[in-house]
Amino acid sequence: MKNPKIIRLAGLAPAALALTACGTKQQPNIIFFMVDDMGWVDSQVAYGDEVYPFNERYETPNMKALSEAGVIMTNAYACPVSTPTRTSLMSGMNSVHTHITNWTATMKDTPSDATGGAVAMMNPGATVETGGQLTRPEWNINGLSPVEGYEHTQVATPFPKILKDNGYFTIHVGKAHWASAGTPGASPLNMGFTVNVSGNVAGMPRSYQSDDYYGNTPELWNYLAVQNMTEYYGSGLHLTEALTREALKTLDYPIRHKTPFFLYLAHYATHTPIQRDSRFIQKYLDAGMDEGQARYASMVEGVDKSLGDVLAFIKEKGIEKNTIIIFMTDNGGNSENTAKGGIPHTQNTPLREGKGSCYEGGIRVPLIIRWPGKTPENVRVNTPVVIEDLFPTILEMAGVKNYETVQDVDGESLVKLVTKGAELAEKQSFASQKDANGFVIPESVSGLDPLRPILMHYPHQWKPYDLVDIDYLSSIREGDWKLVYRMREQKLELYNLKEDISERNDLSAQNPEMTAHLAELMTEKFTTWNASMPGIKGTDLHVAMPVELLTRN
Amino acid sequence: MKNPKIIRLAGLAPAALALTACGTKQQPNIIFFMVDDMGWVDSQVAYGDEVYPFNERYETPNMKALSEAGVIMTNAYACPVSTPTRTSLMSGMNSVHTHITNWTATMKDTPSDATGGAVAMMNPGATVETGGQLTRPEWNINGLSPVEGYEHTQVATPFPKILKDNGYFTIHVGKAHWASAGTPGASPLNMGFTVNVSGNVAGMPRSYQSDDYYGNTPELWNYLAVQNMTEYYGSGLHLTEALTREALKTLDYPIRHKTPFFLYLAHYATHTPIQRDSRFIQKYLDAGMDEGQARYASMVEGVDKSLGDVLAFIKEKGIEKNTIIIFMTDNGGNSENTAKGGIPHTQNTPLREGKGSCYEGGIRVPLIIRWPGKTPENVRVNTPVVIEDLFPTILEMAGVKNYETVQDVDGESLVKLVTKGAELAEKQSFASQKDANGFVIPESVSGLDPLRPILMHYPHQWKPYDLVDIDYLSSIREGDWKLVYRMREQKLELYNLKEDISERNDLSAQNPEMTAHLAELMTEKFTTWNASMPGIKGTDLHVAMPVELLTRN
Repeated sequence: MKNPKIIRLAGLAPAALALTACGTKQQPNIIFFMVDDMGWVDSQVAYGDEVYPFNERYETPNMKALSEAGVIMTNAYACPVSTPTRTSLMSGMNSVHTHITNWTATMKDTPSDATGGAVAMMNPGATVETGGQLTRPEWNINGLSPVEGYEHTQVATPFPKILKDNGYFTIHVGKAHWASAGTPGASPLNMGFTVNVSGNVAGMPRSYQSDDYYGNTPELWNYLAVQNMTEYYGSGLHLTEALTREALKTLDYPIRHKTPFFLYLAHYATHTPIQRDSRFIQKYLDAGMDEGQARYASMVEGVDKSLGDVLAFIKEKGIEKNTIIIFMTDNGGNSENTAKGGIPHTQNTPLREGKGSCYEGGIRVPLIIRWPGKTPENVRVNTPVVIEDLFPTILEMAGVKNYETVQDVDGESLVKLVTKGAELAEKQSFASQKDANGFVIPESVSGLDPLRPILMHYPHQWKPYDLVDIDYLSSIREGDWKLVYRMREQKLELYNLKEDISERNDLSAQNPEMTAHLAELMTEKFTTWNASMPGIKGTDLHVAMPVELLTRN
Repeated sequence: MKNPKIIRLAGLAPAALALTACGTKQQPNIIFFMVDDMGWVDSQVAYGDEVYPFNERYETPNMKALSEAGVIMTNAYACPVSTPTRTSLMSGMNSVHTHITNWTATMKDTPSDATGGAVAMMNPGATVETGGQLTRPEWNINGLSPVEGYEHTQVATPFPKILKDNGYFTIHVGKAHWASAGTPGASPLNMGFTVNVSGNVAGMPRSYQSDDYYGNTPELWNYLAVQNMTEYYGSGLHLTEALTREALKTLDYPIRHKTPFFLYLAHYATHTPIQRDSRFIQKYLDAGMDEGQARYASMVEGVDKSLGDVLAFIKEKGIEKNTIIIFMTDNGGNSENTAKGGIPHTQNTPLREGKGSCYEGGIRVPLIIRWPGKTPENVRVNTPVVIEDLFPTILEMAGVKNYETVQDVDGESLVKLVTKGAELAEKQSFASQKDANGFVIPESVSGLDPLRPILMHYPHQWKPYDLVDIDYLSSIREGDWKLVYRMREQKLELYNLKEDISERNDLSAQNPEMTAHLAELMTEKFTTWNASMPGIKGTDLHVAMPVELLTRN
């Protein structure tokens, strides 16, 4: 691990605090704008080398404007599903390391594996066997915990706590989904947030509609009913709008007090249920989309409007120039079910598959970073980066140099990459879409090895039925090369992403050296972190380590 | 009205803010510890002239200790039910003036009158006729609103907003119950609070028990399920304990930043449902109480433990000497139903009746004020005071001298009364229980006319069935004299509280002059504020003004 545990210098934090309180030290505000389940091609921002058909489907002028004012990360990764991404963000750890490789059920001690959402969410204590030939791996089914003492959790010092310790006013609005009920990770107030609106154990809202009271009616209610929204019942406001208004409201205190703030605005949208945002749907229907497609498009545009409102608000308040915006989504677009309309498993084209999968459609995500005065404008950076990098990145942005964590942080700061690195990319005229994947920002400038491996692991069956290109996959990327481990078939695949972003041409037979190299790399990571591996039914065995497959071949 | 609208001097607030941020101005912290439905005799603190049997029933060492360290208000009043008290507190207005004379239903445009809780809470939009011969008055059924534009609301500038505008970190934990869903008063964040845990439109919790997830189960859920509590599901912690832990957690930010805070810790306890606090119940059962009595006693002791924890916490944090504690309950003890065990309508003895009533059992409440270094210790003050007084009191305590409100504030500051007035009471040796009602603190010392009238008004039927000494009552107290107007019978009663605290001897026939005087006073208030009056069924008439009854007699 490259970032060893760092010991905070005694007495530093209080001094930093005092400085902050009297305004003699300028710390930037940071807004992390997290979107749920919105895919890599689901906006007008072309993160790819070209503008794909899906990029032209949605009206997202604010995402577009933000991308033009900031740095576009063309190779950004999150985990295949929600909780692993969100807990990697909070802990700075890879999901193999946290052993939080699947989403957490609302109730503790309830593995969500292969039950389909409703079963695990509505039946506390229920356990079911996974389908196929594999059995459920041991993993931290209760999610992340800020303190010791809770079974099946990974303990970590969340970065919002460190920000808080260093003078930040920390605000959580929207979806948390780090842990299950009955554990401290269920509450943002335990994770370093001073203010919380709606964040808890829910991974999706029962309803986005105010006429449904966001799920808070006797007919609809379940554990996913959205809390803290009573004032909007019957208001006509989509949940995305209501959460945005709450978020702007919470900024009142830090803005007045000139206190640096961290706002984590984590929209539930565009997660299922796919429900229309009535402000925006009509034009998509008029354009000939089916109901599902139009609903989803209206939800995307609702999120875009929220981003626009946030950007307009900080401008109006005169804090735009000292406010960093990080725009990201938590996994690939959901392509598994039919709620979104269109044809399942194609909705992230050109990327293969979607949410849940370790193919690119499930893990490659939008990421824009804008730091006024520090990041160049409208520059594309192609170095692969991953969700756990945001932990040290945000702390470095905040000027927090020495901090203590109980966990070993795996992520690496992107600050040099998005400042010096992006400036170099701009100078080299590689800022155009066409050549985006052609330029490598050297480690000497970015501080990041461009060949740093990016590891993904989903040792689970996602739904009660088999999903061949989603369940039981792992992957590791190094530069242009990516190895996919299909655990159910115990099979390795090799792709060259530069030439084959759609992962259609398995080159493992043609390039056994690279296959072996990446299998060894993956095995090393799995071994180091004692990865959660599925078992083979009817045996005491777990699925093989990738290197073992090389021997067998 | 004695407190006209005050115009804030331009530019003053920002200056105050800046001073606060750098710690050059010391503003006291203020903790308002609000208990629900706990009666005047339901603790070891004897607010009366003597120790009554009920005072000996409960173990409340922390309330006792606080009373010995502060000023005990022996004649403190709140409204007969929850919302009128809580909105009078937030607005500084008498409930006749706010026209919020009954509790607000969870859903807007739903009068709670005479439906019994469940009907109005579970059937948005339901309207039912009141029982008896009276019809429902027009009142602000949607409660308090911080902004214009919502029907059936009283608009007011809430004092927490003014505190926030003057540098305070404002925290709401627990029960809000100022307004109905779909209106801004539903959310503490709109009422001037920066942090909110659990506060919304609920007037009671669906359950206090963690094994019930505080009502958040498919079987139990209704609009009263407690929000923001997921981390405690299954923890074994009674809601009172969980809210206390949340409250202490929220103090982290202001204590670290040396920012003055206002914490409104409003327990749901001891409201129905009367459910055991398992930490404390056994000894009450062992003492021979019935289940209901023991449950209630355990809830009272749970609240006492919470108070103790708060007091211990501020001591541990070294802020005890700069923290004001206001301990109060929101109305008289509930004596109407059988859940509390014992004999209904006797549970506030020696006071007549209980919650809902304008007899003393419904409106006379515990109130202790402790301001270290400012209030003397263990002193009893007998001047009548009323809930709306807390608005200007708290602002004066906070050092906020000039502020603007959209409403005319009716309450008067108690600061001189509990400092200079209490000191005088101490010197005069009237601090003993025996003589507590015998000494009048003159206005020249307290700033408060000891004959200032205290007005109460409950023009409603509380339950689906008639409650003869609760429904449709008004009262006005001046010194020792109190007039009760029984609107259903259109009858006036006069009591001398000094001689007859139980209101058993109607002196209206013997003292027609005082009866007439108080009837005129009540009529004047009703006329000035255009009081909400019930109608007489089958006619276009409202019930008479009190003076009209004098003519009829």
